[in-house]
Amino acid sequence: MSTIDLNADLGESWGRWTLGDDEAMLGLVTSANVACGFHAGDPSTLRVTTTGAAGAEVVVGAQVSYPDLRGFGRRFLDIEPDALTDDVLYQIGGLEALCRAAGTRVRYVKPHGALYNATRTHTAQARAVVRAVRAYDPSLPVLGLPGSELLAEAERAGLRAVGEFFVDRGYTGAGGLVPRGEPGALLDDPAEAAERLVRMVGTGTVRAVDGSDVAVRAESACLHGDSSGAVATARRVRDELARAGITVTPFV
Amino acid sequence: MSTIDLNADLGESWGRWTLGDDEAMLGLVTSANVACGFHAGDPSTLRVTTTGAAGAEVVVGAQVSYPDLRGFGRRFLDIEPDALTDDVLYQIGGLEALCRAAGTRVRYVKPHGALYNATRTHTAQARAVVRAVRAYDPSLPVLGLPGSELLAEAERAGLRAVGEFFVDRGYTGAGGLVPRGEPGALLDDPAEAAERLVRMVGTGTVRAVDGSDVAVRAESACLHGDSSGAVATARRVRDELARAGITVTPFV
Amino acid sequence: MSTIDLNADLGESWGRWTLGDDEAMLGLVTSANVACGFHAGDPSTLRVTTTGAAGAEVVVGAQVSYPDLRGFGRRFLDIEPDALTDDVLYQIGGLEALCRAAGTRVRYVKPHGALYNATRTHTAQARAVVRAVRAYDPSLPVLGLPGSELLAEAERAGLRAVGEFFVDRGYTGAGGLVPRGEPGALLDDPAEAAERLVRMVGTGTVRAVDGSDVAVRAESACLHGDSSGAVATARRVRDELARAGITVTPFV
Amino acid sequence: MSTIDLNADLGESWGRWTLGDDEAMLGLVTSANVACGFHAGDPSTLRVTTTGAAGAEVVVGAQVSYPDLRGFGRRFLDIEPDALTDDVLYQIGGLEALCRAAGTRVRYVKPHGALYNATRTHTAQARAVVRAVRAYDPSLPVLGLPGSELLAEAERAGLRAVGEFFVDRGYTGAGGLVPRGEPGALLDDPAEAAERLVRMVGTGTVRAVDGSDVAVRAESACLHGDSSGAVATARRVRDELARAGITVTPFV
Repeated sequence: MSTIDLNADLGESWGRWTLGDDEAMLGLVTSANVACGFHAGDPSTLRVTTTGAAGAEVVVGAQVSYPDLRGFGRRFLDIEPDALTDDVLYQIGGLEALCRAAGTRVRYVKPHGALYNATRTHTAQARAVVRAVRAYDPSLPVLGLPGSELLAEAERAGLRAVGEFFVDRGYTGAGGLVPRGEPGALLDDPAEAAERLVRMVGTGTVRAVDGSDVAVRAESACLHGDSSGAVATARRVRDELARAGITVTPFV
Repeated sequence: MSTIDLNADLGESWGRWTLGDDEAMLGLVTSANVACGFHAGDPSTLRVTTTGAAGAEVVVGAQVSYPDLRGFGRRFLDIEPDALTDDVLYQIGGLEALCRAAGTRVRYVKPHGALYNATRTHTAQARAVVRAVRAYDPSLPVLGLPGSELLAEAERAGLRAVGEFFVDRGYTGAGGLVPRGEPGALLDDPAEAAERLVRMVGTGTVRAVDGSDVAVRAESACLHGDSSGAVATARRVRDELARAGITVTPFV
Repeated sequence: MSTIDLNADLGESWGRWTLGDDEAMLGLVTSANVACGFHAGDPSTLRVTTTGAAGAEVVVGAQVSYPDLRGFGRRFLDIEPDALTDDVLYQIGGLEALCRAAGTRVRYVKPHGALYNATRTHTAQARAVVRAVRAYDPSLPVLGLPGSELLAEAERAGLRAVGEFFVDRGYTGAGGLVPRGEPGALLDDPAEAAERLVRMVGTGTVRAVDGSDVAVRAESACLHGDSSGAVATARRVRDELARAGITVTPFV
Repeated sequence: MSTIDLNADLGESWGRWTLGDDEAMLGLVTSANVACGFHAGDPSTLRVTTTGAAGAEVVVGAQVSYPDLRGFGRRFLDIEPDALTDDVLYQIGGLEALCRAAGTRVRYVKPHGALYNATRTHTAQARAVVRAVRAYDPSLPVLGLPGSELLAEAERAGLRAVGEFFVDRGYTGAGGLVPRGEPGALLDDPAEAAERLVRMVGTGTVRAVDGSDVAVRAESACLHGDSSGAVATARRVRDELARAGITVTPFV
């Protein structure tokens, strides 16, 4: 394995308010998880971001969320699975229309924020997301956390399930993410993050916070798009991957 | 001309709140202007309505609106044309996704409420709506008021422009609608409405409030879906059309 | 004890959509839990409902909710306590302004739907609601379920905590409500509901679904305002209370 | 006249998105036009801003808006006057509740964005805003453009009407503002803006773009809070006012 996809969350401005540096990030990633209007990403933001993605030949994925603009989709919502399926469908379609106007299309789906976290273990919500993707277009892959219910449900439903690696998050000895707020949860050093990714691509393992090496099955690596150092980290990661002879290419 | 399409606004419930009798109306119309979430029509409502439309073989159109749930899309909004184009695209796409899950698709576009009224004369907004339809799918017709800027712009852009007749609205001698609130604005009698429609289909004219006959170029007739007498009027119209030997069939 | 307060949820229309029969209910209850815009109750609805309450001399309470119009506040939201406090403050204030224009004011606070359910056991959210009430006006009572964390936190904070009895809900032998969906959860018969309330006022006990008598400490009885039989049940309850010589009067 | 009030728009962040530098501006102005949630300013933002205002002894005013988060309240909405009155009441009350928790209160009202522009000439909307203020608290002044319908209606209703001067906007020979987009609409130079304000306080006149001197009746001067140079301009203005011996003090 000598290739990897780089993904980041983009299109997260809303109305008068801007967030992240989409233009710079579109020059560095190969896949853009574009917000769909439920946690961020009004239609005009989506037009700008999808137009940019089309121009930069970056693949667009639908980053679907709970309906929670105020909370940026970061708060668990105990939504009924059928309503969640409907909401996910609507979001994919909304983004797809802006993609179409921009000359591109939605090519994968990834849950955002609290929905991402919930669908690691919440089978009913994971299944609801998968049902929406399958009803919309069964050829669309689902991008998520290796070992999550989301990816397990996607596979059960015959969808392609793609695991991702988090470039700047610490891993536990059990292969999970160190919860935010605990020691080692976040890697601040771009050099360390880049080096770790190169190693993961080469060996399929990551050094956990307890010192052990744990296996990671990932076809994509997630860079964070909305932090202040996002662009710097992304640049360093690209440089290190190039130096290591690893090709950065979309997973779809 | 011995055929006519019957359209009505459906899918206008939202969340806990219901409006109209979609199930009954789907048995009476041939085209459903389905709300797209901006004035009414949450994703779950859209699923129910599009599933019903697919089952009843009723054609689905996207009834696009200003973003104004609180005002039900009935208040003019001085939105910038580019933002309007983006909003219309998003709405068509959102509805299309629910259509796809229901086994149907969006087959025309019609503006709702204040946007419908504005685009009779507001060229920039009319053009913005047309631009969205064209970018999404130039094979989709636009349904609107004969003589409106909306239909003129649609034709200029190479889209099919379809005029509609209002079954229960009074017409002026100039061929426009009598403004709500003025005498003769609304026809309360289902029998009169039905009879008038039969005559319009047969002769291409309608008797105006000033007693003159004015020409109407319409391939569809609009029934109102949210009034208390909507179902009764629709039934009467269907009966009278059958009696007159006029076939009710979708315009697409 | 020969008095009781009757409360119901009112002001739950929103924009174009109506819900419940506020006018009829205002003639039957002594306290109105008025929606505050976060699950229902746009400002114009609040004006109509608070004006009606002022005219009928019905006490107004703020029925505060998670921000969830789409889900009518019936879905648990894992909101941070500080944000919940802020949201509750905003809602009380919004309603208070409409009350002021109507010549009345907010005189108690009651959580709605999923927030009501959550604050039975979720200490941090219960405390967040109480903190808002205390910051706004420490003389305002909190209305809720006897035995709930909400009322315990209210008492700890020095607020008056008022328990309520559910006229149409079944009780378990432990004194809790039979969960919706289980046998005995709902009493359909207005006569039985009314009789049970009279007994509760007289004896402070209710017959549970397991046949035992359990104690209920309640100064108010909750009637449901949005069901089809709400008005009929409320009338029957008033009649039976009058027959039993029980005075219906606000708890504040 | 040797005193002037300085006002600016604050509290215009929303959820995850931030805007402006409230903390710095609170050290420079004497009156804060705080957003009320309809164009910006979620309840948690309002808590932070009102707490800051209370600490800095800055007077809080309610900056009321059309319900238009997506458009930041900058788009004219043809709202019915009664609904506008209700919306304005709700906004004042929502902000007031957060003020109360912060140990301060709403002490004036100023319309925002498109509502500010509309109420210069739209009598019905101007009256609707005034009616809300009067119903809420007739001792609250209304802050607006000298010569506007808003201030005229406020005076007719017995409210105190306070005119404001725009520090960084060009004036026409007729005493109005040069429309944005036209030459001379905006003053980029903080020094020029400051000097002009000093002259206005001293002489009650401003040099218009046509070279004439026009009279301005203003008790407050508006600084813009959300532009990149806002803080620098505000600092320069304060310095020049101090040098000229003019006291900066709230108008209420």
